[in-house]
Amino acid sequence: MTVVALAGGTGGAKLAHGLQLALPPGELTVVVNTGDDTERHGLLVMPDHDAVLYMLDGRFDDERGWGIADESWTVMDELERYGEEAWFRLGDRDFATHIARGARLRSGFTVTRAVLELQAARGVPSAILPMTDVPVRTQVRTDDGWLGFQEYFVHRHQAPEVREVRFAGIESARPSERVAAAFAAARVVVIGPSNPIVSIGPILAVPGMLDLVDAARTRGVPVVAVSGIVGGKALKGPADRMLVSLGLESSARGVAERYASWIDDFVLDTVDRALEPRIRALGLRTLVTDTIMADHAGRERLARAVLAFATTR
Amino acid sequence: MTVVALAGGTGGAKLAHGLQLALPPGELTVVVNTGDDTERHGLLVMPDHDAVLYMLDGRFDDERGWGIADESWTVMDELERYGEEAWFRLGDRDFATHIARGARLRSGFTVTRAVLELQAARGVPSAILPMTDVPVRTQVRTDDGWLGFQEYFVHRHQAPEVREVRFAGIESARPSERVAAAFAAARVVVIGPSNPIVSIGPILAVPGMLDLVDAARTRGVPVVAVSGIVGGKALKGPADRMLVSLGLESSARGVAERYASWIDDFVLDTVDRALEPRIRALGLRTLVTDTIMADHAGRERLARAVLAFATTR
Repeated sequence: MTVVALAGGTGGAKLAHGLQLALPPGELTVVVNTGDDTERHGLLVMPDHDAVLYMLDGRFDDERGWGIADESWTVMDELERYGEEAWFRLGDRDFATHIARGARLRSGFTVTRAVLELQAARGVPSAILPMTDVPVRTQVRTDDGWLGFQEYFVHRHQAPEVREVRFAGIESARPSERVAAAFAAARVVVIGPSNPIVSIGPILAVPGMLDLVDAARTRGVPVVAVSGIVGGKALKGPADRMLVSLGLESSARGVAERYASWIDDFVLDTVDRALEPRIRALGLRTLVTDTIMADHAGRERLARAVLAFATTR
Repeated sequence: MTVVALAGGTGGAKLAHGLQLALPPGELTVVVNTGDDTERHGLLVMPDHDAVLYMLDGRFDDERGWGIADESWTVMDELERYGEEAWFRLGDRDFATHIARGARLRSGFTVTRAVLELQAARGVPSAILPMTDVPVRTQVRTDDGWLGFQEYFVHRHQAPEVREVRFAGIESARPSERVAAAFAAARVVVIGPSNPIVSIGPILAVPGMLDLVDAARTRGVPVVAVSGIVGGKALKGPADRMLVSLGLESSARGVAERYASWIDDFVLDTVDRALEPRIRALGLRTLVTDTIMADHAGRERLARAVLAFATTR
């Protein structure tokens, strides 16, 4: 069963891993947000792609919650001694990813082709596709003005209130041919439990992406979203505060409302069971289940539950 | 006493270190060969510049004879897993140099400006200047055809006989303004004990470089060369075999002959004392001394001897 999953960082990456565990090899395509991408030390860093890559090739540091397990920091320490900015810490193994990708980009590869080669080298049985090959950069307006996403997210520890979000460059972006082909082949589209504003938001904002989703739905392909807000809180990151400061409800219902016009099915956590009627009132089918993916088995269990729910009507 | 030293890798770098130890801070400028430079994994690697940098900032691995002491190899191991070529091994600390330089080059710096920033960040009291900001690549013709220098030097372990040497791009090269200014301020010019064909050769082949040397000599500035061939053998590298295969004599005299038209003074090792008359016959003044720099004190001793010899007439 060919599945397309949309993902940002940790939450979406975990569900993607669950889907990879639940599906035969080659049947999962993950479309990742590239709005978080940033140039560090002259190298393109793709935090969401790389979180998914490390999750799917079994190297993600579950304990720290980002980056690669068993990481070392020699390169970063040396870069600091060369006067390079050091608030965005990259580990040695992580640097290898950025260097190997950079080598391919310098030789003229698209971002998509470059990362597909990295995934293949690591033996990842799924395809992880950037939402577009055109550079898009998420920026947030705070009381200190517009900030690049990583400046806000990492350097300022998500402390400033977010007044507005924009995706610089998005008007020139288009889904790549690989993304379009993946949607055309999909039997289910899964929206991962990632930040709806700055992870799923940029993917859907790529001109032409919603058309791909709508075309799939027209063919009868179910589109199912999993809430990343549980008990009113984001499991990780600032999604809850962002929803509120942008005038939305910080709840599974707030997420469902934001997606309601282009999804069919919605998965919410058991702790949010009381919200189910209000989400159904948006015209969505609902599944209430344990959405906390505490371990690999939990990821696979949720993935199987989501697929079973979406494909049974 | 402002000194300009020309250097390739290890031997020239060691003498440069000796000169730095012998001179007040700020009085040494090292002009390095860039013909060995190469792109690895999308990053510019400058083996001769970096050997001098690591020597002058006290990080050179004297035991291994290249790279940085206390080095680790995490990035390289990971790059290999991404399918990157791995015969040119770069350590983690070394990678930081290439990344920090690459970041500056990507922001539009010249190579000279980029490396001067790295040197300043490390507190190096001397200036290490690339011979030119224009890319020059040394290539050697072997029985297998033309090879890039590192392909010959590292990948093929200097095994093939060298039939011919060329410096691709040299016709567009010019000494940088910084190099010209250093020669204009020099009181002594020292040619380090580096390979005369592929280390000192490319520097002198930069159009305009010999004019800078000649202008210095016209002002009465002594130009003194130290032989890198001792007892007929190169202390390190393939200089001896190269001299022979190019029809020259593999000896201190062979080196002196190659330099005779543009230097004044020549330093040879005590083991080569018998060659002194034949070198004097080339019209050169000679100093016979211990040229083996076994430790830091040996480097400084040789540097002081060379400077005293050149400045006493």
